[in-house]
Amino acid sequence: MNPSQIIIKKRDKNSLTQKEIHYFISEYIKDGKIADYQMAAMLMAILLNGMDNEEVFWLTDEYIKSGISITFEDHSEKYIDKHSTGGVGDKISLILAPIAAACGIKVPMISGRGLGHTGGTLDKLESIPGFTTQISIDRFKEIIKMNGFAIIGQSNNIVPADKKIYALRDVTGTVESIPLITASILSKKIASGIDGLVIDLKVGHGAFIGSMKRAEELAYMLAFVAEKFDINIRINYTDMDTPLGMCIGNSLEVIESIEFLKGNMPPDLKEVTYQLVEDMLLLATIAKNRNQATDLIDEAISTGNALESFRKFIELQHGDPAIIDDYSILPQSKHKKIIKARKSGFIKKILSRDIGYALIDVKAGRKKIEDDLDHASGLQLLKTVGDKVEKAEPLAELYYDNDKGNKAAKEIFKSFVMSSKKVKLQSRILGSFHQ
Amino acid sequence: MNPSQIIIKKRDKNSLTQKEIHYFISEYIKDGKIADYQMAAMLMAILLNGMDNEEVFWLTDEYIKSGISITFEDHSEKYIDKHSTGGVGDKISLILAPIAAACGIKVPMISGRGLGHTGGTLDKLESIPGFTTQISIDRFKEIIKMNGFAIIGQSNNIVPADKKIYALRDVTGTVESIPLITASILSKKIASGIDGLVIDLKVGHGAFIGSMKRAEELAYMLAFVAEKFDINIRINYTDMDTPLGMCIGNSLEVIESIEFLKGNMPPDLKEVTYQLVEDMLLLATIAKNRNQATDLIDEAISTGNALESFRKFIELQHGDPAIIDDYSILPQSKHKKIIKARKSGFIKKILSRDIGYALIDVKAGRKKIEDDLDHASGLQLLKTVGDKVEKAEPLAELYYDNDKGNKAAKEIFKSFVMSSKKVKLQSRILGSFHQ
Repeated sequence: MNPSQIIIKKRDKNSLTQKEIHYFISEYIKDGKIADYQMAAMLMAILLNGMDNEEVFWLTDEYIKSGISITFEDHSEKYIDKHSTGGVGDKISLILAPIAAACGIKVPMISGRGLGHTGGTLDKLESIPGFTTQISIDRFKEIIKMNGFAIIGQSNNIVPADKKIYALRDVTGTVESIPLITASILSKKIASGIDGLVIDLKVGHGAFIGSMKRAEELAYMLAFVAEKFDINIRINYTDMDTPLGMCIGNSLEVIESIEFLKGNMPPDLKEVTYQLVEDMLLLATIAKNRNQATDLIDEAISTGNALESFRKFIELQHGDPAIIDDYSILPQSKHKKIIKARKSGFIKKILSRDIGYALIDVKAGRKKIEDDLDHASGLQLLKTVGDKVEKAEPLAELYYDNDKGNKAAKEIFKSFVMSSKKVKLQSRILGSFHQ
Repeated sequence: MNPSQIIIKKRDKNSLTQKEIHYFISEYIKDGKIADYQMAAMLMAILLNGMDNEEVFWLTDEYIKSGISITFEDHSEKYIDKHSTGGVGDKISLILAPIAAACGIKVPMISGRGLGHTGGTLDKLESIPGFTTQISIDRFKEIIKMNGFAIIGQSNNIVPADKKIYALRDVTGTVESIPLITASILSKKIASGIDGLVIDLKVGHGAFIGSMKRAEELAYMLAFVAEKFDINIRINYTDMDTPLGMCIGNSLEVIESIEFLKGNMPPDLKEVTYQLVEDMLLLATIAKNRNQATDLIDEAISTGNALESFRKFIELQHGDPAIIDDYSILPQSKHKKIIKARKSGFIKKILSRDIGYALIDVKAGRKKIEDDLDHASGLQLLKTVGDKVEKAEPLAELYYDNDKGNKAAKEIFKSFVMSSKKVKLQSRILGSFHQ
């Protein structure tokens, strides 16, 4: 096979065969006959010309075959995970996994780090003193068996193709491709040994999928490929125009998650979390219908079972479970700045992408994957969309430790879009899709 | 500036600014902030999304600025060159330059090598014993001053950007881009110090531009950019469905060129060569109209001035001028195979691309730029398009030195498309364009 002939085939809008996809990916991964620049040209051709469902299936298959796959021996259990396309203030994984586990689902969760305006589950968990996300696959399986869930970082042995290709996409303007996103998401989830998958597909200002049209395109492709791999899938489109919940920042989001499990739930965070866990319970056939699923979640929380599962999870991954009862053990910021309204009115929007980028200044997020984080810094919203505020009333508290507090606070202030009229609250769930 | 942001801009079909183009090209050339894989992604985005005329002007400008430019001190002379987009059996440079020089034009010709099915002027000249295409720019200028023309290889100092980027395009499926072709052609010609340029834009089976639509697109872009650089340009669309002349192969084409200058002209080769030299004479304002230009060419040949200019050119570039009177001094093949008609009829087509590829087997051409050539091997057509042939009548003679003669002969036989009906001859000149 000739590398540039395969590139030209895609460049000229033709479909690639399984053999061509196999050759291109496998040669690239083993530093064989495909060089970085050839993969880069191919990625741009895929981004601009697309791939059909069959091609994406084979691409996903090659991704999976580039590494090892986890298998669970106990087939009487249901292994179901959730994937989110990334948001601002999205701590759902920290809440959903212990609830789902308390309801009897096994959740083998392999998570990522924050980048750009969006946060990452691993970073949030690492704000817990002692907590580690670097554990062996064998131990990962043991913890899931014991406590129903575990959350670890991407292993180098699972889907190494995605790691290598994603690094190239990041520097060649080829991240925003639906076929490449589909293969990247599904390969890692399928290789983690799941039977079913719930997807939280974020749409809007704070998401990298801006429109419902693109979201639906991605959903259909995800559903097609998942089905070919015999993975049951449910997809929810959720609104990411506004941050989710009231906290953005690593340790702040851990606190908000624990509070949620204690029963203190911001309505928007509750709405989305319940929807996703309900879908997991339906996929697992633990609940027969959505009402029954809701009841199971209510029970997991009211009995304290979900919180206990979370406590045990922290212990099993070497963190200090005392944080559950004493938040002062978590990293603390030296400085606090209160962001106040300059006139009275109603909060129409809180531009989540702008908030996310502003918080990079105080190291609650990062521009590049190698950048340091300050786990304590972040933003506590005091008011959110729909709230009425008076002039000089506090909107939010910014926690920080460096000299960028003023700059970040200014940007955050600008992210509050005010209206003189009352604002009608909308559901965060824009729609859903399953086969 | 951020490399991937610039790639994304082009990916999303936006125009790049002069500054962005400058940054991208200059950083790439100096092995700075743009890596091969980023340039590859950009090239694919340019190929698929295009560039507007202004962008191509700035791209050409950056190409030129990546190296040195030749300047001629004597402004009383007209410096005019011809560029061909590459064909099969196209030895026009070897004939056109001495004729134009004999008519008083200065022709600073920087040529290329054969690749794939198309031949290269440098390879043809190097079949002359002793001949060198590697001479200094100063000596190049001296020879032009003395004898009106010189033909040398691409210098590393002139438009190094094109050399580096072309090598990348070659392995990333990004050769066939009109903006990239335009910048590549014009930058090298403009840096060689010309006032005017005649373009032989090949169209059809044996050309890399397949359709008149693409040819016109390229012509308009070439004309726009040339005008911005104050270069007068004339463009001819010529038919490359059939090989040009009766010889294909390096030393065979040298012989056909010398025969042409001696007055023995295959009609198709005469038609195209005259058209191009006439255009040069018009651009140089040496001829007032095409008829006068034709007369000047006739005279340059009938007086032997063009042949003398060619003889002196060989001498000045260290070749053996005795070849002009004794072709046996040129490399000779050991083997000859006669390709015969299997039935009687008329020759409708001789598929030039297929002939070009078949001749790679006997090393008259090369697949990769580093492959060796056999300067003696090649094909002598005995019949051409329009000719009537009888069963078993010889169509062509294949000269070769390796063990691939049978394979090549089979392919060549298949390249003759026969018809039972008389074939009407068409002009090789499909149209022309100038401002």
